[in-house]
Amino acid sequence: MAGRKNQEVVITSIRRFLRMGATTNLLNILEKERPADLAEVFRHLSDRERRSAFDLLVARDRSRAMEALSELGAESGASLLEGRSAEDVSKLLAELPPDDAVGLVQYLPGELAETVLDLLHRKDSSEVVELLQHAENTAGRLMNPRVFALSEETTSGEAVAKLQQAGGKELFFYVYVIDDRNHLVGVVSLRRLLLVAPSAKLRDIMTSDVISVGIDSDQEEVAKLVTSYNVVAVPVVDAENRLVGTITVDDVIDIIKDETTEDIQKIGGSEALDEPYVDTPFWTLVKKRARWLVVLFLGEMLTATAMGYFEKEIARAVVLALFVPLVISSGGNSGSQAASLIIRALALGEVKLHDWWNVMRREIFSGLALGGLLGVVAFIRIVSWHFMFGSYGDNWLKIAFTVSIALVGVVMWGTLSGSMLPFVMKRLGADPAASSAPFVATLVDVTGLIIYFSVAAIVLRGTLL
Amino acid sequence: MAGRKNQEVVITSIRRFLRMGATTNLLNILEKERPADLAEVFRHLSDRERRSAFDLLVARDRSRAMEALSELGAESGASLLEGRSAEDVSKLLAELPPDDAVGLVQYLPGELAETVLDLLHRKDSSEVVELLQHAENTAGRLMNPRVFALSEETTSGEAVAKLQQAGGKELFFYVYVIDDRNHLVGVVSLRRLLLVAPSAKLRDIMTSDVISVGIDSDQEEVAKLVTSYNVVAVPVVDAENRLVGTITVDDVIDIIKDETTEDIQKIGGSEALDEPYVDTPFWTLVKKRARWLVVLFLGEMLTATAMGYFEKEIARAVVLALFVPLVISSGGNSGSQAASLIIRALALGEVKLHDWWNVMRREIFSGLALGGLLGVVAFIRIVSWHFMFGSYGDNWLKIAFTVSIALVGVVMWGTLSGSMLPFVMKRLGADPAASSAPFVATLVDVTGLIIYFSVAAIVLRGTLL
Repeated sequence: MAGRKNQEVVITSIRRFLRMGATTNLLNILEKERPADLAEVFRHLSDRERRSAFDLLVARDRSRAMEALSELGAESGASLLEGRSAEDVSKLLAELPPDDAVGLVQYLPGELAETVLDLLHRKDSSEVVELLQHAENTAGRLMNPRVFALSEETTSGEAVAKLQQAGGKELFFYVYVIDDRNHLVGVVSLRRLLLVAPSAKLRDIMTSDVISVGIDSDQEEVAKLVTSYNVVAVPVVDAENRLVGTITVDDVIDIIKDETTEDIQKIGGSEALDEPYVDTPFWTLVKKRARWLVVLFLGEMLTATAMGYFEKEIARAVVLALFVPLVISSGGNSGSQAASLIIRALALGEVKLHDWWNVMRREIFSGLALGGLLGVVAFIRIVSWHFMFGSYGDNWLKIAFTVSIALVGVVMWGTLSGSMLPFVMKRLGADPAASSAPFVATLVDVTGLIIYFSVAAIVLRGTLL
Repeated sequence: MAGRKNQEVVITSIRRFLRMGATTNLLNILEKERPADLAEVFRHLSDRERRSAFDLLVARDRSRAMEALSELGAESGASLLEGRSAEDVSKLLAELPPDDAVGLVQYLPGELAETVLDLLHRKDSSEVVELLQHAENTAGRLMNPRVFALSEETTSGEAVAKLQQAGGKELFFYVYVIDDRNHLVGVVSLRRLLLVAPSAKLRDIMTSDVISVGIDSDQEEVAKLVTSYNVVAVPVVDAENRLVGTITVDDVIDIIKDETTEDIQKIGGSEALDEPYVDTPFWTLVKKRARWLVVLFLGEMLTATAMGYFEKEIARAVVLALFVPLVISSGGNSGSQAASLIIRALALGEVKLHDWWNVMRREIFSGLALGGLLGVVAFIRIVSWHFMFGSYGDNWLKIAFTVSIALVGVVMWGTLSGSMLPFVMKRLGADPAASSAPFVATLVDVTGLIIYFSVAAIVLRGTLL
């Protein structure tokens, strides 16, 4: 593997050679690096440098250049193709497996993308066009339609011969077996193929209990399947069980990463960016954050309304206002903890929708325990400050009780809302991750105020209030 | 694949047969399911049912039973072994690849684990014991030490013959090539092995540019390597480049999931649970949440101190208190957004430590844009309420300005702290994910109050204050 230090040397050399116009030296370096390493190097170059290096590499070794571009990710990869003619782009895309090409086409500027698709279509390489017919995030869009399938009557020896003709650089571990009407009937691992006699028929050596996914399956389902059955590729079938493509484990890893990125961004309270942070244009970034921020802000305005109801109490006992941020934020914090724990447990399938009752029982007790703990800490703090600084006047003990009791209630309520909100989201068909930390905090802020001032009204009645 | 409906039928039948003591029927079902499906079924059974079903299966087909147990996860799997004799457990563990056995041993009760390890050691199956010598979360702990390696002089035909003797059910795609002192010198894919003449020497057909990981490498590094080079297994070497094991892509997927689970739990403001939510004992769950909650609470107490400084201002202008939650929570929300975006971008390597300055510039402008937006919304809200309800007295316009200007400052500050805190964490060698939403919110609450009341002091001087 290329170490970090080595990489820095490579980048520095490439920069120097680019400046000097030393094309031969430059190409010598570029040709030695693995596609993934090239992509990493490209990431560290400026836009101009990257484009020059890529153009030089294209002229020398088109297939290698496109592999590196593909590793760079669809977004940045596509930007390297902009400015070329549609004819040129379609030729370059033909170097890649159709599923990778589709990813790139999606990020090309609209007009260029259309012309390119048109050209690909006319050239009988309509695979890319076909993949695009399927909805985003489905197996049909993600699969590689070039699948190595043979009939049941093929012998192991014939299969090896066909394998030799097939070529291709994709991850490749299974031979799929189909009947005369293209139905998927079995699978043979390369390993098994190695171990049987050349005369053995696939029918007799195949596993007929094949794990497959439907062409319309959601990508999340594909990921779950590959993960739980520990396979490195899964065949994709249409409604009639006809083999139409495969999805390999490297794509599944990308799916898993994308899904968790989305979850984390939502938990943080923004919309999913759908592209790397650094590649997201400034105003898109602002827009994806602004929407939720404004919604939360409108919700949070209810705190001003709630506080307005207690304006007289605050005027009479300003000391109450001092603890407002402390009390409500504790509810938000405990709610944020509970929400993220449950969102992740739901995403991993550790907790199912019907477990809500068990979770609720557990979280009520967690909330009481945590709230009790914070209540004690707050009590000690207020009492200490009273004896040390005389901060809270004659009613210090009642204030200490107000804050402590309110904390138990608010933290319990925060924990409960935080843990139940993801279930509610899921039940409504929304993404549980949308019950973000800020969302829970906002919810708890408003209700927390009401809890706090209600406790105050009871405890302080007749003295401060 | 077993559909959901099918699974429910299976579970119902198993329950019924268990109650009836219909062992033969029960075993017929258990033997037909795939290990991963069995594990899923086990998850839906009660503890007692699960144990009975597992015990029956062990008696019939020990290897199958252990595969299912392994799929169940280390935690729950280990609990199914408790109560058996150490002799028994060590025999059962021998059915699994050493890396899976290690996972289980770690979760056995201390005394049982020790006796089991002792037994395994005495029986010359010391692989498990050796794996446990390596630190947790390193390649050495995770690898499967049973690796298929051959010398450079081996011919392709001999390799196939040895493969036939080897057996084993593990994911298996590469033959590693070693020199006479066990140094890793090359790799041959099964596919290549299929396509070359039986007389070809491995030396001549191998790829000598092997991607490998050191035995002490962190699991995160292993995952990055497998992901970026699109391989399905990676060899593990010691300091002298001697081949000592392999890590397969299914383990890498588990690593990726565990790492993101940890990140999400930390972002939510608790410690990483290190085990599934449902399997975490109640008091462990409370402890893992309490620690951060108390730390944040102590931090948040500074809000009470800060508010204390402004007590006189609040007493003179109670209306100021009404907007405290609104203003500070907006800072917390925007900070939480920024933090989670940056934490994820850092985890994916989209953003590196040295990019902090670019991110900071970008986030300052994002913060200004978002703060400006919320400022406008707040202004409209206060002015409207004034005209509709006369809520805010004579100084309504000044109050509107105070809140709006404070919002710009607080949101900008929230965005900035949220985006920079993960960098600071990383720089200090801590996990960027520790800059959780609640942490950022707490930080911003305290400073937000100061910003708000300072703006108020300037805008309202001579009128309300």
